[in-house]
Amino acid sequence: MQKKTVRSAPTRDLVVEKLEHYLNSPECPQNGCLPGEDSLAEMCGVSRKTLRSALDILAERGVVDRIRGKGTFKVLTYERQKKVIYYFLPCANYEKYAGITSATHIMETLNGLMLATRGTGTYIVPLHYSQSNRPDDPDWEVLNMIEPGAMVFIGGMWYRRCFSFLRRRSCKVLFLNMLDLSIFHPDNAPYMDDINSFHQLRIDNFTGVRNCADTLMKHGCRKLFLAAASLGDITNPLLPGYLKSGGKAYWSCDQELSLDILRDELARQYRKFQFDGLILGCGVEFPSDSRFTLRRYLGLPEEVRLIFYYKNPTVLALDRKQPYVCCDYRRICREGVEILLDGYHPEIQRRQFKPHIENLEYL
Amino acid sequence: MQKKTVRSAPTRDLVVEKLEHYLNSPECPQNGCLPGEDSLAEMCGVSRKTLRSALDILAERGVVDRIRGKGTFKVLTYERQKKVIYYFLPCANYEKYAGITSATHIMETLNGLMLATRGTGTYIVPLHYSQSNRPDDPDWEVLNMIEPGAMVFIGGMWYRRCFSFLRRRSCKVLFLNMLDLSIFHPDNAPYMDDINSFHQLRIDNFTGVRNCADTLMKHGCRKLFLAAASLGDITNPLLPGYLKSGGKAYWSCDQELSLDILRDELARQYRKFQFDGLILGCGVEFPSDSRFTLRRYLGLPEEVRLIFYYKNPTVLALDRKQPYVCCDYRRICREGVEILLDGYHPEIQRRQFKPHIENLEYL
Repeated sequence: MQKKTVRSAPTRDLVVEKLEHYLNSPECPQNGCLPGEDSLAEMCGVSRKTLRSALDILAERGVVDRIRGKGTFKVLTYERQKKVIYYFLPCANYEKYAGITSATHIMETLNGLMLATRGTGTYIVPLHYSQSNRPDDPDWEVLNMIEPGAMVFIGGMWYRRCFSFLRRRSCKVLFLNMLDLSIFHPDNAPYMDDINSFHQLRIDNFTGVRNCADTLMKHGCRKLFLAAASLGDITNPLLPGYLKSGGKAYWSCDQELSLDILRDELARQYRKFQFDGLILGCGVEFPSDSRFTLRRYLGLPEEVRLIFYYKNPTVLALDRKQPYVCCDYRRICREGVEILLDGYHPEIQRRQFKPHIENLEYL
Repeated sequence: MQKKTVRSAPTRDLVVEKLEHYLNSPECPQNGCLPGEDSLAEMCGVSRKTLRSALDILAERGVVDRIRGKGTFKVLTYERQKKVIYYFLPCANYEKYAGITSATHIMETLNGLMLATRGTGTYIVPLHYSQSNRPDDPDWEVLNMIEPGAMVFIGGMWYRRCFSFLRRRSCKVLFLNMLDLSIFHPDNAPYMDDINSFHQLRIDNFTGVRNCADTLMKHGCRKLFLAAASLGDITNPLLPGYLKSGGKAYWSCDQELSLDILRDELARQYRKFQFDGLILGCGVEFPSDSRFTLRRYLGLPEEVRLIFYYKNPTVLALDRKQPYVCCDYRRICREGVEILLDGYHPEIQRRQFKPHIENLEYL
C-alpha cells in the first residue's frame, strides 16, 4: 500500500522527502548551510531543475531559506538546542573603571570567539561579571544564567570570586591568564584548587620580555630599562623574564598612568640611568593622530631603541613604525573554542602562547 | 494512601516538596534568584531552621545553589529554554574598517542590552553581520543562526541587505537609526518595505542640532558654523535642523578625518566666516591626555563658543569641561528590550529619542 503511494508520487515529491530526511540527518551541516544545487541534485539522483522545484516547496513551507546568489539554508528552528559559550565582561562600566577609552582587548576576544565558533552552531553569550565594578562582588543573578556543565571562557584573575561556583556547577572553564600561577601568592591561594581544575591558557610574558631584552641586546643596546605596570606582583612574569636576560634597571609604574606622568618619569629615569634600550609596557592611551610617533611623544632621545610591550594587536592608535610585542588573540580564541567544543579533557591542563615582536625592522 | 505517606514524612521533606513545587511554578523568579530565607520560611509556614535543612537537601541534589552572603539560587537547567536577543556587530575587523580605535558605541549598546535584560532570563547574542567588511556582503551562514520569530536588535542602515531575510523569518526587529527615513533616498528605496514592517527607534538629530543652534544663539552667538560628516546625505537630519534654526554656514567634512585636516580646515573656515559659535560633529578621536582641552587642540579663538556633537556618552577622551550632545544609549536599550520582551506590536511603529546637551555650564 505504502509502496504504491510512493510509486505514484511524482519525482519532485520523492526528492522533497529525501531532502527532508537529509535535513534532519547528522549529514546536514550544523549551521544549516546546504551544499550547492549541483551537489544536492547529484545526491538525490535528479536533474537540477527537479531539485529546484523540490527546494521551492521546502522554501514555501519555511523549512529552507533560499538566498539569491548565496545558496540554500536550512531554517534552524528554535527547538534545536544551540550550544553556548559564556564569555565574561568585567562590568558595564568597565571602560570608565579601567580608565581606558576602548575596551579593545574585550572586543578583540569577543570577536575572536565569534569567529572561532562560526559554523559550529555555537553562540557566544557575553555576561557581566559584576554590576558594582568590584572583582569581589560578582553579580550572582547574572552568573546564575550559567547552567551546570556549561562552557565558559574567562580572561583573567579579575573573576576569581566565582571560580568555586563554576567548579560546583561542573562547568568546562577555559581560563586565559597572564600571571604565573605556579608561584605562590597569598591572594591567589584560596582559588588555586578551582584554577587547577580548569583548563588554563597562559600568555607567556616571561619569554615575551626575554625576547625583547635579547633582541635589544642583539641590536647593540648595553643598558636596558623596563617600564611596566605591576612589576611588584611576584606572579607577574615580566620582571623575572627581564632579570633573567640580564636586565637590571626598571620602574614599576602605576596601572592608571597619564601620558604626562609617563613622559616626566621616563625623562627622570633617563637622566639617572642613561639607558639605550627601553621596553615599555604601560597601559597609556596614545593619540590616533596620523602624524603621531611614539618616540617623539615620549620625548626619547634618538639613540634609545624602544620596544612597546603591548599584548593586544588591535591598538590602532599605536605608531605603525614601532616594534611592539603582540599576542594573537584570534589564535588563542580558536584553540580555546576547539578545546571547549571538541572535548574538554581536564588532564590536558595547560597551554602557553608566546607573544612575538612585530615591526622589528623599525628597531 | 498518599495522604498517609505525606503525614508520616517529616516536616523537612514536606518543605522540600513544597519548595520543588515552587521552583517549577511561575511564581519562582525567572532568573532563579530566590527570596530571602525569612520569606521562604514564612511561605512554607516553617521555622528558618527547618527551611535551611530543606534547602540543604535541594542544594545536595543540585537543584539550588546557596552562595554565602548572597542567597539561594535555583540552578537553571539546560533544558529550560532561555530567550535570545540577537545584536549585530558589523564584522570582526570593524575597528580597522571604520578607522576608529574603539568600537565604543558597539560596546555601549552591547552593555546597554545586557543591563536591560538582566533578570529576564534573556541572553544577548552578538553576531557578525559580515566577514568581508562590506555592507552588501552579509555572512548568510551566521545570519542563518537567527531562527524564525527571533528578536533582533539592529543599530543602523549598515545592515540593510539582510532586512528582507529578517522579514521573511518574521523576526521581531528593533531598528535603531540616525537617519530620517521619511525622506526619499534611492539607496534606501529597496529596503523601505522591510524597514516599515520593523519597529523603529530613531535618534532625533534634527531636534538635537536645533537645540545646539538655539542654545548658542541664546548665549549671544550671531554667526554660527556647523562642521559635521555626511551633511550632503539628504536623509541626515543634521543640516535641515541647523538651517531651520537660522544657521547658514557649514562644512561637510569627510567621515574619516585626521585631526590635522580638521584643525587646518577649521582655521580656514574661521578666516572666511569669522563664526562665533561652532557645532562640531566630526568623528575624530581626541587624545585621552588629562591636560587635553578640545578648544586648545583645535586652535579655536577664545571668543568662539563650541558644542561638540557626539552622540555617544562614553567618549572618555572627551574634554570634560566641554558642552557636548549626548544620547542615552542605555535608556534606548532599556526601552528597546521592553518592547521586544513585553510584546512587540508592529502597529506601534516608531519611537524617537532626543539628544540633550551635557556640561552646558561650560559654554
